[in-house]
Amino acid sequence: MKFDVTILGANSAKFAHGRHQTSQLVCHNEHLFLLDCGEGTQLQLMRYRLKMSRINQIFITHLHGDHFLGLLGLILTLHLNGRTQRLEVFGPPGLDEILAVQLRWSETALSFPLIVTPVPAGPSRTVWENEHLEVLTIPLEHRIPCNGYFFREKQGKRRLVASAIDTYGLRPQHIAMVRRGEDVYADTGELLIDHRHVTLPPHPRRSYAFCSDTRLLPQNAALLQGADLLYHEATFLHEQQDRAAATFHTTARQAAEFATLAQARRLIIGHFSSRYRELAPLLDEARTYFASTHLAEEGVTFDIPYPDQEADASSAAAAPWAEPVQA
Amino acid sequence: MKFDVTILGANSAKFAHGRHQTSQLVCHNEHLFLLDCGEGTQLQLMRYRLKMSRINQIFITHLHGDHFLGLLGLILTLHLNGRTQRLEVFGPPGLDEILAVQLRWSETALSFPLIVTPVPAGPSRTVWENEHLEVLTIPLEHRIPCNGYFFREKQGKRRLVASAIDTYGLRPQHIAMVRRGEDVYADTGELLIDHRHVTLPPHPRRSYAFCSDTRLLPQNAALLQGADLLYHEATFLHEQQDRAAATFHTTARQAAEFATLAQARRLIIGHFSSRYRELAPLLDEARTYFASTHLAEEGVTFDIPYPDQEADASSAAAAPWAEPVQA
Repeated sequence: MKFDVTILGANSAKFAHGRHQTSQLVCHNEHLFLLDCGEGTQLQLMRYRLKMSRINQIFITHLHGDHFLGLLGLILTLHLNGRTQRLEVFGPPGLDEILAVQLRWSETALSFPLIVTPVPAGPSRTVWENEHLEVLTIPLEHRIPCNGYFFREKQGKRRLVASAIDTYGLRPQHIAMVRRGEDVYADTGELLIDHRHVTLPPHPRRSYAFCSDTRLLPQNAALLQGADLLYHEATFLHEQQDRAAATFHTTARQAAEFATLAQARRLIIGHFSSRYRELAPLLDEARTYFASTHLAEEGVTFDIPYPDQEADASSAAAAPWAEPVQA
Repeated sequence: MKFDVTILGANSAKFAHGRHQTSQLVCHNEHLFLLDCGEGTQLQLMRYRLKMSRINQIFITHLHGDHFLGLLGLILTLHLNGRTQRLEVFGPPGLDEILAVQLRWSETALSFPLIVTPVPAGPSRTVWENEHLEVLTIPLEHRIPCNGYFFREKQGKRRLVASAIDTYGLRPQHIAMVRRGEDVYADTGELLIDHRHVTLPPHPRRSYAFCSDTRLLPQNAALLQGADLLYHEATFLHEQQDRAAATFHTTARQAAEFATLAQARRLIIGHFSSRYRELAPLLDEARTYFASTHLAEEGVTFDIPYPDQEADASSAAAAPWAEPVQA
């Protein structure tokens, strides 16, 4: 089951050094989710040939312009393209008013249902789910109310050993049973199929945590414990820790220390201050404290493989800037 | 005195074929004015190395997203850059509410005074002026309230013949007099300097008309009579005239016919429908009816020379796509 994250932009506050504002596209099992939507996000989606029409859920972390000013433009483009499928937007209280005011003045009746769900700050809770995945909020602390989002797979079923279908003559109803962990008995009570003989345990549940703008919050390590992939803002180098604290941001060192605390498998740092033309110092600083750190570089897709499939599934590991994945 | 227009975007409704949404930068006597501000306008300003910090007035024609969604992002970038100079924004009623709602939710106190002046639809009137220039509204008819903007120079003073300073021994107070068209007399009543001997008539008043989104309005030809440069939307080819009428847009032929009616010197067409990958058919159609037509191509600057200085002052005339200027 596919699970990956594509970086569309990761600069803080404004455009600089060719870097765009925050936005990411998450793909899970062919479902596309957009995380934040800075100005020009629709252009980034076009640039990387990503199908904006297939996005059905958009999650906005907070109402600073660099995280949402591209949202209405994207919505209007979907409208002009004749979309009919409903679009769900999750974001802080106020986002509904911001969209409504502009749609009212432009006298626009959208071609599709737009469902805006306010997500107030507060303890973590599930805001969206389907059969395979749930999306929870991550309580963040920024200058204004802010939630991160935690994509966590639900417990899957046991995995059928393909050769067992012929060996055991499995029928569809048997397959459903053994994947649920049930054995198959004859009417006489005789054990016909031991589910442990024809299935492997379910894949481990994978997860992706998106911590956009926040000061360092060690208490979130419990919620995100063992995250396969963690994006954490790292606006400044640690030499600017006072400025980071004053502006409710995080340093590269702090992001790495948080990844260690959360026992994440891999870390992506982003939301780079425009003061840094070169990002290598931020990466070097983070890697000193957490080796498996990567930069949020635009257009790069980070696969989130099952742990036993890492070697072949991670395009990030094949990219020149990547280090081997370290568990 | 410099007077030119740089195209930042001229596609209608959405981004397509590498073309951006509507925005233009007008420069007059070192003053910079922004006309409309589609999403990503600040990126276009950066791309063409135009100094956004020097923009002091922004004029928005109407509240369709492709004409204003880049405005708040631009304002926030100016704020982050530490601007202190006041910024004046002119636009339809509602624009003030749209900006205020978003600034309130983002808890942003701008670093500079932002003055938003509502410009309701209605008869043409002056909305801004300085010593040399006035900006008037152009009544347009679109699906929602819409004003174009007409940049018209004020009557200048007579031009001093440089050699006359020595020949006539002109003093500063004499220069001021003859430039106002007054003669200089001795205390005895003797005519010392005939202003016609030392000055030339003032330059003709130049003008630029920006007609963004509108159906064809022949009645505007009187207001814009003799405009040196006219931008008129030409969303469709004339074969789509029914669709143009239904959506309150103009065809390339209609734009050219309007330029003829207004006796404009040159015409720029823009606001191209995304259905047209190639723009040559639109240009060809317009030129059939008005020879001196140009496409609104991004990054191109159209100089507006004094009529007697056209040959050397028009960079547009030197561009490969340009036709010789025809009066």
